[in-house]
Amino acid sequence: MKAEIISVGTEILLGSLVDTNAAFIAEKMASLGVSISRISTVGDSWQDIYQALEESLGRVDLIIVSGGLGPTEDDITKEVLSRLMGDNLVLDEAALAEIRRRFRGHRIPEKAIQKQAMIPASAKRIPNPVGTAPGIILEKGDKTIILLPGVPREMKRMMEKELYPYLLSRLGTKELISSRILKVWGMGEPQVNQRIADIMLRQSNPRVGLLAKRGEVHISITGKFPPELVGEKIKTVEDKIRERLGSSIWGVDEETLEGVVSRLLKKRGLRIAVAESCTGGLVSHRLTNIPGSSDYFSYGIIGYSNQAKSTFLGVPASLVKKKGAVSSQVAKKMAQGVRKAERTDLGLGITGIAGPSGGSRNKPVGLVYIALSSSEGEICQRFILAGDREDIKWKASQGALDMLRRYL
Amino acid sequence: MKAEIISVGTEILLGSLVDTNAAFIAEKMASLGVSISRISTVGDSWQDIYQALEESLGRVDLIIVSGGLGPTEDDITKEVLSRLMGDNLVLDEAALAEIRRRFRGHRIPEKAIQKQAMIPASAKRIPNPVGTAPGIILEKGDKTIILLPGVPREMKRMMEKELYPYLLSRLGTKELISSRILKVWGMGEPQVNQRIADIMLRQSNPRVGLLAKRGEVHISITGKFPPELVGEKIKTVEDKIRERLGSSIWGVDEETLEGVVSRLLKKRGLRIAVAESCTGGLVSHRLTNIPGSSDYFSYGIIGYSNQAKSTFLGVPASLVKKKGAVSSQVAKKMAQGVRKAERTDLGLGITGIAGPSGGSRNKPVGLVYIALSSSEGEICQRFILAGDREDIKWKASQGALDMLRRYL
Repeated sequence: MKAEIISVGTEILLGSLVDTNAAFIAEKMASLGVSISRISTVGDSWQDIYQALEESLGRVDLIIVSGGLGPTEDDITKEVLSRLMGDNLVLDEAALAEIRRRFRGHRIPEKAIQKQAMIPASAKRIPNPVGTAPGIILEKGDKTIILLPGVPREMKRMMEKELYPYLLSRLGTKELISSRILKVWGMGEPQVNQRIADIMLRQSNPRVGLLAKRGEVHISITGKFPPELVGEKIKTVEDKIRERLGSSIWGVDEETLEGVVSRLLKKRGLRIAVAESCTGGLVSHRLTNIPGSSDYFSYGIIGYSNQAKSTFLGVPASLVKKKGAVSSQVAKKMAQGVRKAERTDLGLGITGIAGPSGGSRNKPVGLVYIALSSSEGEICQRFILAGDREDIKWKASQGALDMLRRYL
Repeated sequence: MKAEIISVGTEILLGSLVDTNAAFIAEKMASLGVSISRISTVGDSWQDIYQALEESLGRVDLIIVSGGLGPTEDDITKEVLSRLMGDNLVLDEAALAEIRRRFRGHRIPEKAIQKQAMIPASAKRIPNPVGTAPGIILEKGDKTIILLPGVPREMKRMMEKELYPYLLSRLGTKELISSRILKVWGMGEPQVNQRIADIMLRQSNPRVGLLAKRGEVHISITGKFPPELVGEKIKTVEDKIRERLGSSIWGVDEETLEGVVSRLLKKRGLRIAVAESCTGGLVSHRLTNIPGSSDYFSYGIIGYSNQAKSTFLGVPASLVKKKGAVSSQVAKKMAQGVRKAERTDLGLGITGIAGPSGGSRNKPVGLVYIALSSSEGEICQRFILAGDREDIKWKASQGALDMLRRYL
């Protein structure tokens, strides 16, 4: 089935707002097997909205519109649709009660409240529990027009909780498209490709794809199956890939590496201290982004200067002089020093050259040593990371968190 | 003048790519006084591109298309345009030489190189120094169609370096729209509004607007004037606003607070050390994002646990017990301790409750104390910050950097 999306909003045409709603809607529709053949963006103008709606109705049977449902004078999407379809706006008592409840205690003009509670007579209202403007589903003959609010949070909730189930049954969707992302650190795209090339080639449903992302590789598994089978079918391929790549896969979908590591630290009841040089606090920042991080994060030292490395971490000045601040020996001493100073269970030490200056022939920009210290001793890894200063900081923090994950 | 934008790319219709190109182009056009009346997105389909182009030509005289100029089979924008306008594609020798030069050493099929060097016979080529596909300007009667590559970096460079000057002269633009953003920390929107309400009301060109952004306020000044006057006109209003708000304005346009602070530290030749608790390393991370930060950043301590505060910063356990870890006394001791340990010029101390748990009636989530220590002693500020954990961390880091800026 084909559908079109119409985004309403003068801010988009002025370039002051990037239209992320259309992408979100398009992705959801794709997963339902509906292909979007066009996205049109028009301003808050009666004529332009009318024309865009009319043209879309001439091309497809399903149209999803976002924006222009608010309480102000220039929110006119509902009014235009009502005129175009010859379907008068009437006051929806349930919507009115809902909007009044949300506005309780605020001084909102009665007119604005009433305006938002009007819906076309033959339309179905989609409740908006996180905002005020209800959504609208209007079915006329073969045509279905759906209006959603332009506020992303409200639009997304309606799409996920109300519209998706509605479309699933209305379209009589026999097959759903579903995706799973596996996130890999420590291997390049060619290496991942080599390990799973036969799985990738052997099948087109689910289809397996690779995407290189800031120093790591994401493997996508996308399949189209009946709703009751789709989860299992994707799981089977995921299991096969996990057999090949094992612990190189650190997480799935929306997971973050700091989230995974934090969960493992909590589960094992271990406390950590972090000594950073080139990452400048990023590893500690990421570990403390997780609520409850004081359970496992003890403290961090950002030893930028050599003197700081010696004062706080007990890294001997002679060692820095002999091996250089960026060396495996110094990384290990940092990890050990930060662990011992407060007797935490684990210590991380990171030293490297984030650039753009400070590199040399033997020690280029992007050279990073990461060490982990535990009661069993110290381990250390050497990396050569590409990119600008912020890329290198990010990748080094990713490398450090992944080392920790593998240990746990 | 009215114009339309067409974005070509199946990825956008699948929702796997957010169309940021259209917003960028729209903003540039707005600044030229051209109003975009519609943005249409279509896939890499002959019929859909043809239809969208034809419809747009029926509505407006200027169309800007991005995407579909690459070397692969499904890049067909140029081919469709050539057919629609009856303007055959011919090999452009200059383009060919340019593309060959960029591909030197790569093994690219000759066919792909030639395809990218073809342009409509009566079109003007826009060089692409950061990519391979040239852009195209095709003028026929009243109509102007511009094709740009879909790769954002290439598109943006062409737009700024080549197309903007071309459109400026082609449109005979008598008036340019230009904007300036002033960034304010330490005042809410109502306070800023109160101070400059008369300036905002007094004039509509330049127009002055306010925008609340994650704990700070941005003031936009937007004016439409002849090219030779626009800078001066905006400057006059900026000066008036600066008179009212003084040092509350920390930066303009794309500036970051860490960038401003780094510049000031370098200029004054001062070194700093940072003691963080609730910000968890974010202040150090931001300060070390700036290339050359080792000139002014000495080290950081993230004293999450009370023990770490005492070991590394010399904050007495008795003080923490008496006043609580989140108190002005502890913040000052942290700032002083971190400064003295390595005898840096300045020390920052930050302690607070980032949440979501850990708050109490007297010390709610969002309570943050920030102290700055120098040879003149310690100063401390108290904040109550709203938002989730990451918001509070961000705002506290902003507060700390701003305190530093004001001192400098």
